[in-house]
Order: sequence, then C-alpha cells, then structure tokens
Amino acid sequence: MLNELEQVLPADIEKRSFEIITEELGDKELIPGTEPVVKRCIHTSADFDYADNLVFSDNVAERALSAIQNGASIVTDTQMAKAGINKKRLAQYGGEVYCFMSDEDVAQAAKENGTTRAAACMDKAASLYRDGRIRKQNGEQESGLIFAIGNAPTALVRLYELINEGKLKPELIIAAPVGFVNVVQSKELILTLKDIPYIVARGRKGGSNIAACICNSLLYML
Amino acid sequence: MLNELEQVLPADIEKRSFEIITEELGDKELIPGTEPVVKRCIHTSADFDYADNLVFSDNVAERALSAIQNGASIVTDTQMAKAGINKKRLAQYGGEVYCFMSDEDVAQAAKENGTTRAAACMDKAASLYRDGRIRKQNGEQESGLIFAIGNAPTALVRLYELINEGKLKPELIIAAPVGFVNVVQSKELILTLKDIPYIVARGRKGGSNIAACICNSLLYML
Repeated sequence: MLNELEQVLPADIEKRSFEIITEELGDKELIPGTEPVVKRCIHTSADFDYADNLVFSDNVAERALSAIQNGASIVTDTQMAKAGINKKRLAQYGGEVYCFMSDEDVAQAAKENGTTRAAACMDKAASLYRDGRIRKQNGEQESGLIFAIGNAPTALVRLYELINEGKLKPELIIAAPVGFVNVVQSKELILTLKDIPYIVARGRKGGSNIAACICNSLLYML
Repeated sequence: MLNELEQVLPADIEKRSFEIITEELGDKELIPGTEPVVKRCIHTSADFDYADNLVFSDNVAERALSAIQNGASIVTDTQMAKAGINKKRLAQYGGEVYCFMSDEDVAQAAKENGTTRAAACMDKAASLYRDGRIRKQNGEQESGLIFAIGNAPTALVRLYELINEGKLKPELIIAAPVGFVNVVQSKELILTLKDIPYIVARGRKGGSNIAACICNSLLYML
C-alpha cells in the first residue's frame, strides 16, 4: 500500500495540489483576480462547488489587499477561523485577528438580549469601532476592519443591521456561514449591500475553514 | 429582506438544523450508532456527501465512547482542529487536546528528516507514548490516545508506520485529511489496519472542521 503513494517533497505538496485543481477546473471561467480565492477554497474543502458559489463584489480583491496593506484587522465569529488565519502574515501589515466569542461580556449580552453570542460579537466590534477604525487593545494603533464569518448567520444579520445603522463600515465582509437555518438568507442580505466589498459563499456551504482560507488567499496574494 | 428570516430561538438553531438534515436524508440507511457522527459532519459542511463517504470500523462509536470515558486524550494535526474540539466537555472525562504543530522540536525534526511537520508530530506523540497511555505534561495522569487528523495525509502515513512498528496503539483514528496529494491513499492505508478503531472520511473530502466535529459528535453522545 505504501508504494502507491505519490512521491512529492513536503515543500511541493501545496504546489502540486493547486496544479491538480487548475487541471480539473479545465476551461471553467473565473473572474480575473479572484482565481487564488476560488482555488484555495477548493484546496481547503476538496469541493469544486466553490468554483460556482463564490460571489465577489467589484474589484474586491484589489480593495481587500489595499485594506490589509493599510493595517486592517480581522474579526471572526469562531476561534477555529481565528486559529486558521495566518496571523504572522497579517501582523506584517499591522493587522490582528479578533474573536470575541469566548468573552464574558459577550455571553452576558447575548443572554440579556435573547440573541446569539455571534450577534453579540458584532455589537462588541461596533462598540470598539470609531471613524472607520478599531481601537486596538494596546491603544496605540488603529486599522480598518474585515469580517470573516464562517459559522453564524446571526452574525451576518447583525452586521447588516449595524452597517445600515451607520455603526460599522467594514473594509470587507467574508460571508461564509454554513448550514441550514437562515444561512442562505443571511448571505443574500450581504449581497444587497452597496459600497461594502464582499466575498460571499452563496448557498448553504461555507465554514470556519472556508472563512479562514479566504483570508489566507488574500494574504498570500500580497 | 430581513422579514424572510426564519424565526428560530438561538437555543433551537442546532436542533432545527438537525431536523432539516434528518428530513433531507430521508430513508437513507445509516449504520446504527453512527447517525450522530454522519449528521454532525453534514451540519458542519452542508455537504451530504458525508452520508456516503464515512467508513466506520465495527462498533467504533461504542469503543470510542468507552475510551473517552476512560480519559483518552486527543492528538490533532492542526491548531484549527484543536480550536474546534469541545475541550471543556473532554476535560470532564480527564482528556486533553494536544497539537504539536507549532512546537520548535517538531519543526526541527521535520527539517532534519525531510518530512512534514505533521508527520513529525506523530513521532512526537509516539515518543510520549508508553504502554497504551500518554505521559501528560504535569506527569500526574495518563490516558489513551485518539488521533484526529483533518489535514495532513503525511500524518496518517506516519501513524500507520508507527502502529505497524508497535510504537503506538491508538484508541481511535479519525482519518479526515482533505485534498489532492496522497489524501485518498493515506485513508485507504488506515482502512487496512486490524484492531484499531477508525472513522474514515473516504475520498478527497475532510478537513480540520470535519475532524473536530467527529470528536464533538462522540462527546455529545455521552
């Protein structure tokens, strides 16, 4: 059995994977500039549905890369997504990754408001947000905000409300919750937003792994 | 748009999701005792392929639950999988989650041996392993080992070798790497093991999220 393994050097495994993905995509047309995002989602999931279900706002990659280069931070709705993002790479541009899901005040707020912790996390992000920037914990630096949502449609719905109330203006929304209850609808909400760059995994599919890998695909473009 | 959302209380979202999954599975036959694993993989991915691609060794759920109740710890091949496992629930039975991927000695060993860090992690697990148990860092307790592999086929291959060399005897192998290079083959290797309980996501699909959710599906059965 062991001799059936393909001999590929550790450093070449990812390269070889992307070659196979490119080969199997064949002449599938992708939007110029978004190919690395699509291919990394397929790399992360082995699911070629991502060649069809990712929706990109105009020039989103360009705008996202510019936000990252200007020190944007990333807010996630799961510790898993936070764990999956290349934080060292992001830090090179001054950004951090925040996940408020385990915070005591978030649990308390969710309980009091009869909402989910993920929605309460968006309120917490908004409370830290001023003039297009987030106040970092050390108080020293500020940056724009990217939301990478891979789990909770309730986070996306709250995000939509906060944007419409003028309390948040994200540099990018990665909308990739997964599942069966309000997942599809929450993503359609994000698709109605004007002037907010987005990458949406339309339909039921997505996940913390997909949200994280979309962030990484952007980071690796720089 | 907001009024198109289904009204479901936060506490009921997961229950409602599982109802939808059960409904859509229809009369699909699942192996008794494995249904919660299959359904949670679908819940995590919105991908019904998991109704077909999960392979279970005989009585694996029963054996895995017994291992957890006896204090088994879990070794993962990614920080993401570690982040996704319900560590509080596992700790109730005395188990911990280990991921050696960021360890300096693992990076060093991988470099020296021309292998991947994931494979070197399996060697590190074996070096900590004695008489069916792992030496915990505080030196006080010992437990069996469950391997939850959601990323690296090289980890599975090394695990297979270590088992055949008599250096490891896992209580359970969750074999769910995802991807394109040796992923399929590495899972087939695990399927050839005798006397080692396994849950294998056959084919290309899997991921850290799937490895973690299989662990959680077992924990939630207790």
